[in-house]
Amino acid sequence: MASTLPIRIAVVAPSSRLSPEIGERVLALAAEACPQTTISFHPQCFESSGHFAGTDARRAQAFLDAANDPEVDALWFARGGYGAFRLVETVLPRLGPAARNKIFLGYSDAGAMLGALYGAGIGRLAHGPMPADLNRSGGEAAVRRALAFLAGSSDALEPSVRPGMPVAAFNITILAHLIGTPWMPELASHVLMLEEVSEAMYRIDRALGHITSAPALRQVKGIMLGRCSDIPPNEPDFAQTEEEVARFWCERSGIPWLGRADIGHDAANRVVPFGLWRP
Amino acid sequence: MASTLPIRIAVVAPSSRLSPEIGERVLALAAEACPQTTISFHPQCFESSGHFAGTDARRAQAFLDAANDPEVDALWFARGGYGAFRLVETVLPRLGPAARNKIFLGYSDAGAMLGALYGAGIGRLAHGPMPADLNRSGGEAAVRRALAFLAGSSDALEPSVRPGMPVAAFNITILAHLIGTPWMPELASHVLMLEEVSEAMYRIDRALGHITSAPALRQVKGIMLGRCSDIPPNEPDFAQTEEEVARFWCERSGIPWLGRADIGHDAANRVVPFGLWRP
Repeated sequence: MASTLPIRIAVVAPSSRLSPEIGERVLALAAEACPQTTISFHPQCFESSGHFAGTDARRAQAFLDAANDPEVDALWFARGGYGAFRLVETVLPRLGPAARNKIFLGYSDAGAMLGALYGAGIGRLAHGPMPADLNRSGGEAAVRRALAFLAGSSDALEPSVRPGMPVAAFNITILAHLIGTPWMPELASHVLMLEEVSEAMYRIDRALGHITSAPALRQVKGIMLGRCSDIPPNEPDFAQTEEEVARFWCERSGIPWLGRADIGHDAANRVVPFGLWRP
Repeated sequence: MASTLPIRIAVVAPSSRLSPEIGERVLALAAEACPQTTISFHPQCFESSGHFAGTDARRAQAFLDAANDPEVDALWFARGGYGAFRLVETVLPRLGPAARNKIFLGYSDAGAMLGALYGAGIGRLAHGPMPADLNRSGGEAAVRRALAFLAGSSDALEPSVRPGMPVAAFNITILAHLIGTPWMPELASHVLMLEEVSEAMYRIDRALGHITSAPALRQVKGIMLGRCSDIPPNEPDFAQTEEEVARFWCERSGIPWLGRADIGHDAANRVVPFGLWRP
């Protein structure tokens, strides 16, 4: 949907590099779908340093540039990959007042930063599509959904999200690697939505076992499982689906199983605002 | 070395299944190398249930059979894979007096159980070769080393292990997935040795970031890095070796970097007894 709210979006890449061609296509799409929106890709998005979109220092500075800019309404993570966790410890203490009420939107590896921001009470955080999703089959719908969300539409939300019920959404592996660190947010009483991509079933089982065994996480309201896609073959066959695995760990841990969530590494990925969303 | 101490060893498989042929070969090797040793492979070692060497209930019972048997001096993990963590919560409260002074030897996925046992103060625990290592190139030396250790030889120990200095050794991924659970042992003041196999460099980096960011683990005496083998290609190239990655996280976290450890998923894997070893 085309919204009427003007919004200024800054795109940064705390994880892996975005191709400039995707950046161009996102700008063209936004000009058509949300003409009142201003999108600015930080040059850092297209830089490269080994696995990452620039060195830790460069990525951290780009993130701080956008997060601390009072002229920016929303910081949009360019893509996942890996690298956001490496920035958390240096970025968090340097976030100023302009970051407090800003929207931060991303998922996958971005969840390491979103989780840390949520733990620190900074920003209005949401798990949802990123510019790199334009590369997916049907990815234009994902990017349009993100833009609509940033412009204030509630049509983009995961259908079970409702007022008064705190929620959070994470990639399974990313959440597991936050547990026990100072940046693990408090998720008691939240509906926790989890999704995964490109992990063998024994890894999904292992990470869900980790998550549901952490005492703090046994206090969640319940778990909803998003899609687990591109699962490599398990040797030998794991003989359980991701839903059976998630139900097993919910039963073992006493965490209520709340069914499936409409999130995942795909074009249908809906937006999940963290906590009690303030539209 | 052939030892003169008689010892009764029970082999169980809390993780993945062992082939009966390996069991036969280990028995033949032990008969020649340590004739005074009695090795008993629990039938569960050769069973199969999906990914695992039998159902959780079956594997837990086999583990308890061996651990609680006063006629057994040492419980030897058959192999790694995945599955030990799934047993911890049910096995731990059912361990009786006969488990208290027993030796438990294994590594890789077995580390989930070794860590939990260490946290609970149960047993004399050691990170070292398993029967399945016989399948490796040069693996006979690894199995001989394990048998010599179980028979009381200190020749098998990792060379930096010395009296009065508590140590522990883990697979990197397995330790990361213990963090924040009730089964994460206290490792303050320990030399922590870490090794990995078959994980891409970004995953090694991510898990080491997790480990070195957990406040409890920042209290270790220092980190020694074992071998990281069979590392799949990183896309794009990670541009850092595992030692550079480990040094980076040590520097970032303030944990002393103590150099390399002679452990890993290979035939040269030396034995690391947990804590202050009581030979």
